[in-house]
Amino acid sequence: MSNLMPHPGRSIQLLPGPTPVPERILAAMCRDVLDHRGPVFQELGLSVLKEMQTVFRTKDPVIIYASSGTGAWEAAIVNTLSPGDRVLTIEGGHFAAMWTGMARDFGLIPDVIPTDWRTGPDPQKIAEHLAKDKEHAIKAVFVVHNETSTGVRGAIAKVREAMDAVGHPALLMVDAVSSLAGMDYRHDEWGVDVSVSGSQKGLMLPPGLAFTAISERARAATETAKMPRYYWSWTKMLAQNKEGYFPFTPATGLLHGLAESIAMLKEEGFDNVFARHERNAEAVRRAVCAWGLDVWCLDPESYSPAVTAVGMPEGHDATAFRKLVYERFDVALAMGLGKLAGKVFRIGHLGSVNDVTLLGGLTAIERALAIAKVPHSSGGVAAAMDYLG
Amino acid sequence: MSNLMPHPGRSIQLLPGPTPVPERILAAMCRDVLDHRGPVFQELGLSVLKEMQTVFRTKDPVIIYASSGTGAWEAAIVNTLSPGDRVLTIEGGHFAAMWTGMARDFGLIPDVIPTDWRTGPDPQKIAEHLAKDKEHAIKAVFVVHNETSTGVRGAIAKVREAMDAVGHPALLMVDAVSSLAGMDYRHDEWGVDVSVSGSQKGLMLPPGLAFTAISERARAATETAKMPRYYWSWTKMLAQNKEGYFPFTPATGLLHGLAESIAMLKEEGFDNVFARHERNAEAVRRAVCAWGLDVWCLDPESYSPAVTAVGMPEGHDATAFRKLVYERFDVALAMGLGKLAGKVFRIGHLGSVNDVTLLGGLTAIERALAIAKVPHSSGGVAAAMDYLG
Amino acid sequence: MSNLMPHPGRSIQLLPGPTPVPERILAAMCRDVLDHRGPVFQELGLSVLKEMQTVFRTKDPVIIYASSGTGAWEAAIVNTLSPGDRVLTIEGGHFAAMWTGMARDFGLIPDVIPTDWRTGPDPQKIAEHLAKDKEHAIKAVFVVHNETSTGVRGAIAKVREAMDAVGHPALLMVDAVSSLAGMDYRHDEWGVDVSVSGSQKGLMLPPGLAFTAISERARAATETAKMPRYYWSWTKMLAQNKEGYFPFTPATGLLHGLAESIAMLKEEGFDNVFARHERNAEAVRRAVCAWGLDVWCLDPESYSPAVTAVGMPEGHDATAFRKLVYERFDVALAMGLGKLAGKVFRIGHLGSVNDVTLLGGLTAIERALAIAKVPHSSGGVAAAMDYLG
Amino acid sequence: MSNLMPHPGRSIQLLPGPTPVPERILAAMCRDVLDHRGPVFQELGLSVLKEMQTVFRTKDPVIIYASSGTGAWEAAIVNTLSPGDRVLTIEGGHFAAMWTGMARDFGLIPDVIPTDWRTGPDPQKIAEHLAKDKEHAIKAVFVVHNETSTGVRGAIAKVREAMDAVGHPALLMVDAVSSLAGMDYRHDEWGVDVSVSGSQKGLMLPPGLAFTAISERARAATETAKMPRYYWSWTKMLAQNKEGYFPFTPATGLLHGLAESIAMLKEEGFDNVFARHERNAEAVRRAVCAWGLDVWCLDPESYSPAVTAVGMPEGHDATAFRKLVYERFDVALAMGLGKLAGKVFRIGHLGSVNDVTLLGGLTAIERALAIAKVPHSSGGVAAAMDYLG
Repeated sequence: MSNLMPHPGRSIQLLPGPTPVPERILAAMCRDVLDHRGPVFQELGLSVLKEMQTVFRTKDPVIIYASSGTGAWEAAIVNTLSPGDRVLTIEGGHFAAMWTGMARDFGLIPDVIPTDWRTGPDPQKIAEHLAKDKEHAIKAVFVVHNETSTGVRGAIAKVREAMDAVGHPALLMVDAVSSLAGMDYRHDEWGVDVSVSGSQKGLMLPPGLAFTAISERARAATETAKMPRYYWSWTKMLAQNKEGYFPFTPATGLLHGLAESIAMLKEEGFDNVFARHERNAEAVRRAVCAWGLDVWCLDPESYSPAVTAVGMPEGHDATAFRKLVYERFDVALAMGLGKLAGKVFRIGHLGSVNDVTLLGGLTAIERALAIAKVPHSSGGVAAAMDYLG
Repeated sequence: MSNLMPHPGRSIQLLPGPTPVPERILAAMCRDVLDHRGPVFQELGLSVLKEMQTVFRTKDPVIIYASSGTGAWEAAIVNTLSPGDRVLTIEGGHFAAMWTGMARDFGLIPDVIPTDWRTGPDPQKIAEHLAKDKEHAIKAVFVVHNETSTGVRGAIAKVREAMDAVGHPALLMVDAVSSLAGMDYRHDEWGVDVSVSGSQKGLMLPPGLAFTAISERARAATETAKMPRYYWSWTKMLAQNKEGYFPFTPATGLLHGLAESIAMLKEEGFDNVFARHERNAEAVRRAVCAWGLDVWCLDPESYSPAVTAVGMPEGHDATAFRKLVYERFDVALAMGLGKLAGKVFRIGHLGSVNDVTLLGGLTAIERALAIAKVPHSSGGVAAAMDYLG
Repeated sequence: MSNLMPHPGRSIQLLPGPTPVPERILAAMCRDVLDHRGPVFQELGLSVLKEMQTVFRTKDPVIIYASSGTGAWEAAIVNTLSPGDRVLTIEGGHFAAMWTGMARDFGLIPDVIPTDWRTGPDPQKIAEHLAKDKEHAIKAVFVVHNETSTGVRGAIAKVREAMDAVGHPALLMVDAVSSLAGMDYRHDEWGVDVSVSGSQKGLMLPPGLAFTAISERARAATETAKMPRYYWSWTKMLAQNKEGYFPFTPATGLLHGLAESIAMLKEEGFDNVFARHERNAEAVRRAVCAWGLDVWCLDPESYSPAVTAVGMPEGHDATAFRKLVYERFDVALAMGLGKLAGKVFRIGHLGSVNDVTLLGGLTAIERALAIAKVPHSSGGVAAAMDYLG
Repeated sequence: MSNLMPHPGRSIQLLPGPTPVPERILAAMCRDVLDHRGPVFQELGLSVLKEMQTVFRTKDPVIIYASSGTGAWEAAIVNTLSPGDRVLTIEGGHFAAMWTGMARDFGLIPDVIPTDWRTGPDPQKIAEHLAKDKEHAIKAVFVVHNETSTGVRGAIAKVREAMDAVGHPALLMVDAVSSLAGMDYRHDEWGVDVSVSGSQKGLMLPPGLAFTAISERARAATETAKMPRYYWSWTKMLAQNKEGYFPFTPATGLLHGLAESIAMLKEEGFDNVFARHERNAEAVRRAVCAWGLDVWCLDPESYSPAVTAVGMPEGHDATAFRKLVYERFDVALAMGLGKLAGKVFRIGHLGSVNDVTLLGGLTAIERALAIAKVPHSSGGVAAAMDYLG
């Protein structure tokens, strides 16, 4: 055990997921297993399935998988699409690119709208692209709500408006993995067909659960979708979920944690949670600016309240810097992913993080900048403090 | 919280999974999340991946999914087979029938050897069936090691012998979900190509992890297998597992528990664990016989050390009986599944169960038999006590 | 860690304390410390101090010590009495004898009414003894409500009636250590002046807290009591307890558990808890009788719902028998204490124990009786099952 | 539960006790109770009693009470002294004054050497005072090693030298409550007779355990000491401790935690732990100086590595300031005690605290200074960062 906890004191996790798990949630999971075919489980099952509708702001059913968020994305594809279908993807970052890759692996033909990885999906371009698809060969549009790799938030409501403006019937599928419960998300109001999320972000749980909210149109699409499916089958899930049960053994321990997580979010109030993350994010950006480093996201309208990607000055490796911060100060930052590897590090500020913890983490970054001789000004912590004070 | 724990005292779980989670494992999981891209996680990842080879008794790599066991079965199919492939399945019970159904859902063509659901797979029949397949159109044989729905253990080594006797090159895929770590299992020695298991059985963890040991031949099959795959991709997994990492966020909390589970199994000794389960099983069967009820498995050679299915007398509903035991005594038994629904109930005796807990559970059954006016003799508990004494 | 948990499965604790700690309470304690001088603690402090009045059924203040129950007894003495004071004690068992010894160690002069250790305090004898004390030199009467060493319950209300009948002003001090929250207890209605209890019995907590309910007369006695005191000072405690704080650092972790314990007791209902223990006790006595062993308590009116002491046949050592049960079956029974050492073993049936666990424990005893060749009939478990069914 | 955890994120506890409880210790305590009369407990008991000798650096026996540290001080008095005995106390702060008060409450006659509450005990004055006591009427000298209320460390070795220099046979009794396991402490080498400590400081446990190391001379003193005693009796304790047992029910849950605490301290290495605290303390003092506030301790030789008391400027109430920091930032500081109430606040920096957490806490103070309009310069956090970098 010793090697797994090398530092005294508590680690500070400033990741865009997994986020710190509050004690209350750890305690809620610290109990013997339930029979998932018995009435006590049933009550839990019905409760969390229903509460998750509140979290997604939807009247549509929500499915809970024992899997990572990636699994729920795979489920979205295999339940609604057929090999050879065209889909529109907006490659705004590493995770968006992964979904494009997954689409290809499943025999879909993705039309890719590239971006500079520093701005959000452009509704105008989406509209233009769809307008050209007169025969409606494009069956789905994949958009990432919060691109975890870049710290850019996509304007989902505007994407829906763009689709509606050109009258295109493609399904709107949204990756809300690192946004749900961390920033405003409205499955129904925004007209999303498939919303996908995971447990280890705004929901403050350990990884292991994935969530999908599914519109009526998306559910109807399962009837014609020709991809083979079993574990991910929405039909199998929805049939048993009606009674609070699951077709395959659910991750009961995490479901106990989920019930507690939702209770905590409701106690604090979703709006307060979102405001807290916005505030934390602004404090981080002020620190970054004061250091003279780059906030990677170029568009203030698209700043993510969940994570800030920070560009490293030329000649300095972000991955080595992140390692230094971790080993020297026991503060976990996220690395650059995909084509941003080595170029950015990322500071998560969602989940159960308060401002003194965040500031503690920023002190580690500021000190590490000095140790690593990264050119910077030293007032980042002070700027964040000023803003938060 | 109150509704979820209606009884004072501890529930007794006599399920063939989920099995009771020992305090040590609960405590090991009661900790904040790890950064799954950092060095502390890496050490954990390398360790559990390696230790799982010991558990499967293999030198082949073992993959760990965030999913239920069903997911690992799906993975076995999509990584090695192509639509239209023939497979041989032995329908020995509900779970065997599920895999046949899954095979069909993925466009495979199953040859099904039926059984009476009361005996194990017949190696002779398998050999005969394969011998007829001169062109080796059958690409895989699916066998369940411990059929959880019937309490029948399959003779995997003999199935392999049968396959070898007729020189058939099909892959041997084994469902070891409810057997691994609860009874002797030998992936290498028995010549298994794909072994599949889950966390909530012999490994004494909450549900949420699935495991697959993969032979070299099975890994080679991925190169020609045409099923689409992403989340389940062995290739993606094995590439990152080499360094102790995972392509998709792993269920880190459960992995902490897994490390503790393996430590506990090694402390007790696998052989001692297996012997304990055999002994518990025999005690249960003696109780069942003394009550004058049916041990569902007809062949003593095939008695399962993990679970005993018990046939209810005509005119008595096993599902209602199970409900009575649960509600009245807080003892969880398993219900009859598939075509055994209502006809049998099942007593699990694997995992972290000692004989006084088992006997406590048997007292509940004996009393419930009286309450439900099920024709029986009353000496079941006494018979089990005599045997265990 | 391995050596501390040698058996697979859960131990069955049939002790009259410590009793099993429910998962909910363990989880409630599994949290970082609180600042015991801050407002969050204050809320907890006020709450548990108030709730404990409900548990004791009193309007008098209740004090909570970080100590074992013995500490609270010491506190009762040093806060109300002076060296040389006479007290009346009824030596009904080992714990009663300990208080007599403690009284002597503090320079008090105990008048001891002996008993056979198999029946409760005799109110008639108490009345007669006090009637002779015309000058009221006796300052306090010490009575044990539930004598844990013998399984005999004392009739506190009748002791009070006897004292009142002869108009004696001595303080009535009651050891409710193993009775509180496990059987009916009424500090106010029964006219008790000092009630003393501990955390690890009916309250289902780990050991480490002691409780004292203190009547107005007892509080007044502190003004003339000449024993030196500091840690145990009621005055210091009561002064700070008014605001929810404590003069010396309280055991905050256990106080979190206490809040959960009280919540659980209220959910089940105190009357239901008491009835459950009465029922468990009767089941145990039926088993003992069926085995042909001795229920140590001779008076059915005084049978303890918390613990049953069982006399071993001549020539058989109860201590060795208890050891056998523990080592062979992982079932913890209590040993004989004081002059009953070796002569009785004791079966606790209070706290978070349900009847299947209790029956599991009884199977261990029945089997151990056979192994140890103790003369007995074998139908004890069956008799308990019949009663509980 | 909600009211008890009003803030999102983790509280930062910068108290000189209770200190944060590491997850490993919480997990170690999250288990059902042990029978404290059984062999599994015995092993635990023997182990922790022995390991505590290492912690105190002594070959003398160490006693463990279920109580706060105050209880162990009371034990030191009642086991070694008699009413009317003279003792020498050095009133260096609030806790020193409390022991003087306790001495009076037990009928001792304290000779008090006053200090300015800003410097440590003066060995010279102690020597002079004792030299005058030709008849050796003074039976004990009470010294506080780390005065928690002032942040002043006493030079215990020099006090012993002073006593020896004048050949005075009084017992040397030391309050090591907030020093043990947090800074160098040497019971044997320094010639201490009675060392007293508690669980919630350097040992990183919840409150509820107290410790006493007892020299042979102190043990001999019990034979003539006339104070009454029972719960605190060293004789009773030592008799049962030999076999690993306790005369009164020990706080078993906390003892599990203690075993884990000691394991952690040994893994890090006591010298590393002490160095970490020294370093944290220096960082805090640099912050305080940069703010232009007063480090209360006047003598750099006596700076405490455990806690720094900070003088508030005239006209600003330290208690209100501490409240602001707690309510606004969820950072717990300690208040001024006794005659320092309102004049100082205190920053603890011992136990499981790393430097980013400490810095996070300092950001809260710096921001609160601005909010509360306390005259200060703003570079405290920066100064601490510079030092730690």
